[in-house]
Amino acid sequence: MNQVPEPLYLDDLHVGQRFTSGTYQMEVEKMKAFAAEFDPQPFHLDEMAAESSVFQSLAASGWHTAAVAMRLLVTSGLRIANGLVGLGGELSWPRPTRPGDILRVECEILDIRLSRSKPNQGIVTIRSTVLNQNNEVAQIFTARILVFKRPE
Amino acid sequence: MNQVPEPLYLDDLHVGQRFTSGTYQMEVEKMKAFAAEFDPQPFHLDEMAAESSVFQSLAASGWHTAAVAMRLLVTSGLRIANGLVGLGGELSWPRPTRPGDILRVECEILDIRLSRSKPNQGIVTIRSTVLNQNNEVAQIFTARILVFKRPE
Repeated sequence: MNQVPEPLYLDDLHVGQRFTSGTYQMEVEKMKAFAAEFDPQPFHLDEMAAESSVFQSLAASGWHTAAVAMRLLVTSGLRIANGLVGLGGELSWPRPTRPGDILRVECEILDIRLSRSKPNQGIVTIRSTVLNQNNEVAQIFTARILVFKRPE
Repeated sequence: MNQVPEPLYLDDLHVGQRFTSGTYQMEVEKMKAFAAEFDPQPFHLDEMAAESSVFQSLAASGWHTAAVAMRLLVTSGLRIANGLVGLGGELSWPRPTRPGDILRVECEILDIRLSRSKPNQGIVTIRSTVLNQNNEVAQIFTARILVFKRPE
């Protein structure tokens, strides 16, 4: 049983704070289904075609890895009051995700800034690193997220 | 009938070159299905809950917008020889995508660098802007993509 953590406000966050998500296993059929809908390229759809590609074997779409990372954060990693709302950030995929990979997300808060125009809000910079079961990095997203102060 | 363009090699690209994709209409049921699988937050799942959220009405997950942008590029926007392979980049979501929005992607090549270690490859920086039917910007992804030289 997972305990559901209390939602976090800006007041609860500090630079250097870390969070770790649960895990998610990449299933080959889901990889292919995601690719068929959103990234229909042979190396995401077909094992044989992937072997002669730059990926050398079947690889998930990077956007699938990104979407799974969001699921992990929302459901288990980072419970932000009023929701986890990203404004954008720097994204990289150092290596592809493969069938059967077991992914988790490790986060660290890098920066916290209060909004000048909206005194009840802040922008938090958080680095989310997606790791597989061998602790290899599949994705890094250094994101700016919107976080509210605790209502007085 | 769309003509399928010839795949592009590094030799075919230049800074300032532009590409435009076809269009894709965001359907409310697909927005909710994507969110249920990857970004299960009330403002992506339920109209009533969204009204009292920071989004004020139902909004697609930013990762859904990103995935649709990839689909548009792969299927109609940018045909790169050996596939469209992103290494990463800077992503931002200036405004959310709404039910019924008709999205397209406009791309511009910003930079081209030859690989030092792999003489048959280069890294191309390309800005992909997702626009809706009112020409409002829903997403900007300034990405580094891997592009091969034409085989000799």
